[in-house]
Amino acid sequence: MTEPDYVTLVNKAVEHTIPVAHAMGARVVEVRPGFAAAEVPMEGNGNHFGVMYAGVLFTVAELLGGAIAVASFDTTRFFPLVKDLRISFLRPAKTAVRSQAALAEETIAAVAEEAEANGKADFELDAELTDTEGTVVARTHGLYQLRRLG
Amino acid sequence: MTEPDYVTLVNKAVEHTIPVAHAMGARVVEVRPGFAAAEVPMEGNGNHFGVMYAGVLFTVAELLGGAIAVASFDTTRFFPLVKDLRISFLRPAKTAVRSQAALAEETIAAVAEEAEANGKADFELDAELTDTEGTVVARTHGLYQLRRLG
Repeated sequence: MTEPDYVTLVNKAVEHTIPVAHAMGARVVEVRPGFAAAEVPMEGNGNHFGVMYAGVLFTVAELLGGAIAVASFDTTRFFPLVKDLRISFLRPAKTAVRSQAALAEETIAAVAEEAEANGKADFELDAELTDTEGTVVARTHGLYQLRRLG
Repeated sequence: MTEPDYVTLVNKAVEHTIPVAHAMGARVVEVRPGFAAAEVPMEGNGNHFGVMYAGVLFTVAELLGGAIAVASFDTTRFFPLVKDLRISFLRPAKTAVRSQAALAEETIAAVAEEAEANGKADFELDAELTDTEGTVVARTHGLYQLRRLG
């Protein structure tokens, strides 16, 4: 079975439905069941210290919750939303930034089962953000919910 | 003594130094020692559920830390930076959103004194985000640091 092209699918969805994130240049670069990575360029995203603005780092991390859900859950019947997100800024980011997060196979199965039974299920996602030298510039801990459509 | 026009000052600074936030239409509307409020319009800031995107809510809250610092501390000698921010999304925001946060006079004095002595001092800021009907749509808890310039 050929896997759907989740990267193209998610980037098209972001372009049309989260224009703010698209305008920042945030793009997913890897999306598969249990894993998502995104990138955002430095250009146009700086703040007054010549480093990437906090809101851009938030966005490139937050996006992963939706991206990973598209590849991990049945998003023709369930949609993800973010309930709570904590971001720790560890180092100034002066280059493009990559975010990535993973969700264990057992977690995916448990969340899918609970959402099937109750119409909704929470899941947590930890993301790591790195600059082009591999330095960790920020970390996020997000609480998302998978919820039945309609 | 006439107070400086902090609102104009901060909005000019945001326009030139955080173009991403300015492009969202985020503007401070009240800034005085110990208090700041900002607003962001719904237009252009929606997500795929027809509600304001999480990253926009983050931004209109995060901005308050810098705005309140401008009016509360000597920002010719010290600058604020955000170290950690947690945002809880409580209700979908379907209108323009207002954020506001306050810092007690004693806190301001203690932070200024510590920054003077050590070159840096942390401060915490809780912001509340409301829609045009006054419904609280999100809350943030931020940890900022005031740090000596240069």
